[in-house]
Amino acid sequence: MILIDWGTSSFRAFRVENGAVTDRRESGMGILRVEPGGFASGLRGEIGPWLGDGETHVLMSGMIGSRQGWVEAPYAECPAGPDDLARALVAAPFEGAEVRIVPGVRGTDPSGVPEVMRGEETQIVGVLDRIGEEATACLPGSHSKWVTVRRGRIAGFQTHMTGEAFAALRDHTILGRTMQDGPTDPDAFRRGVRRAREQGGLLHHLFGVRTQALFSQLSETEGASYLSGLLIGHEVAAAMPSGEVHLIGAAALCELYALALACFEVRAEIAGADAAASGLARIAERASWN
Amino acid sequence: MILIDWGTSSFRAFRVENGAVTDRRESGMGILRVEPGGFASGLRGEIGPWLGDGETHVLMSGMIGSRQGWVEAPYAECPAGPDDLARALVAAPFEGAEVRIVPGVRGTDPSGVPEVMRGEETQIVGVLDRIGEEATACLPGSHSKWVTVRRGRIAGFQTHMTGEAFAALRDHTILGRTMQDGPTDPDAFRRGVRRAREQGGLLHHLFGVRTQALFSQLSETEGASYLSGLLIGHEVAAAMPSGEVHLIGAAALCELYALALACFEVRAEIAGADAAASGLARIAERASWN
Repeated sequence: MILIDWGTSSFRAFRVENGAVTDRRESGMGILRVEPGGFASGLRGEIGPWLGDGETHVLMSGMIGSRQGWVEAPYAECPAGPDDLARALVAAPFEGAEVRIVPGVRGTDPSGVPEVMRGEETQIVGVLDRIGEEATACLPGSHSKWVTVRRGRIAGFQTHMTGEAFAALRDHTILGRTMQDGPTDPDAFRRGVRRAREQGGLLHHLFGVRTQALFSQLSETEGASYLSGLLIGHEVAAAMPSGEVHLIGAAALCELYALALACFEVRAEIAGADAAASGLARIAERASWN
Repeated sequence: MILIDWGTSSFRAFRVENGAVTDRRESGMGILRVEPGGFASGLRGEIGPWLGDGETHVLMSGMIGSRQGWVEAPYAECPAGPDDLARALVAAPFEGAEVRIVPGVRGTDPSGVPEVMRGEETQIVGVLDRIGEEATACLPGSHSKWVTVRRGRIAGFQTHMTGEAFAALRDHTILGRTMQDGPTDPDAFRRGVRRAREQGGLLHHLFGVRTQALFSQLSETEGASYLSGLLIGHEVAAAMPSGEVHLIGAAALCELYALALACFEVRAEIAGADAAASGLARIAERASWN
């Protein structure tokens, strides 16, 4: 069995034999780097040797199932759990192996505005054993997802455009002029998170990044960390988690979110790496292959 | 008397004789387009003929008094009214006329974070007769100012980075991909404003711009207006004006803000153009010239 997390800018594949990952392969061949019509040959280029060894089942998740991907896999509706996803796999045309794509999940926020995810549903499935059947999970990133798990299924979720807004504000507004690149400054990050809890709103708080720099209350090495804390703080304040939050994703980012959650006195647990591989394995077990 | 509103990207001069504007001149010679050390000759290039006619008093406001301008004019502290500003004028070296710069104003927000303005204080002074001694004014723009006037002085103010955040998000995130340039769509703008009043926070609402476009709930001609309404709506929600709001600035932008305030059932009044010229005239009257 071959499991693949194929996203916008990355490709990660796992070979699983007798339930254990025996090989893995990672590349920058995200879907945006594949020519139209080139997905089958792109896949063969990446995992040809494993196919040559006789692997015949490939399960993929992520943006590969989007309109810009190989085959569009229609969204499953919330609530969606491992069985719902396994039933809704979509086949991609490929000679010599059965290739299936996990659908994304669609929901609405409390105001009725549409919500979508692709890839995160599989990561959630991958940590279900660990986080339990009733849980709140957060998958931080460009588009952070806050997911409510009920009875072992994704009951609903909300996305915050935090990472992408951070990059746009740092790189394309006056704020970036007083910021130096460098490692995260945890104290400045925490100050930003605490600022998010004060009155005035995000757009006002953003201007404060500028004035504090002008009056030497925020140094060039602190600026980006403070801005990051400010935005993540606003995200956490809006998400209003009540119980423990399970963080899923890259370790460094999860640690930042854990720091932010601590400022809100919310308990955080980092739910670990390779969630996509575990989720794909779990869905693959439940799927009916030819 | 010559009055000049000299900002980052524009230069606007008024010639006043016997209390009436008899000539005006506008150019794109903002302070960022003037070489270091070139302000005196730049000024002479713009208003040489008026000086040749015998004008000897020049009063300026705006970013010309900033660190990047001609002479840095230290901020006046809140509360600041016309007399405070007139007492704090700073001279710029110029042969053949007395040139003075109105200082900006400095305050702090309720959390103690610094606030600054340069130019807006003069516009406020320019509309004081109209808005009265106790008022709330809003000067929309890249960095919108909400100003509380008490006893005819600027008692405090808060800035929101709304215009600049709008441009960064439209031009440098995924949101711009589903937006076409065009005139403001008032209905889409109002939908954005109303969205700002729903739960979830700005970073979540931003992602909704994307999903609504994906599901054909927001067209390419509506996208930018909706995003504008969303951001201005968040600004108004955070500013929480209680009474009438006096809008000062460019007519089209003031009309948008009036539309947003109407969604919050807040009364708005557009306080008119040339506020800078009126304010400069009022401060000039109170100043002691040599």
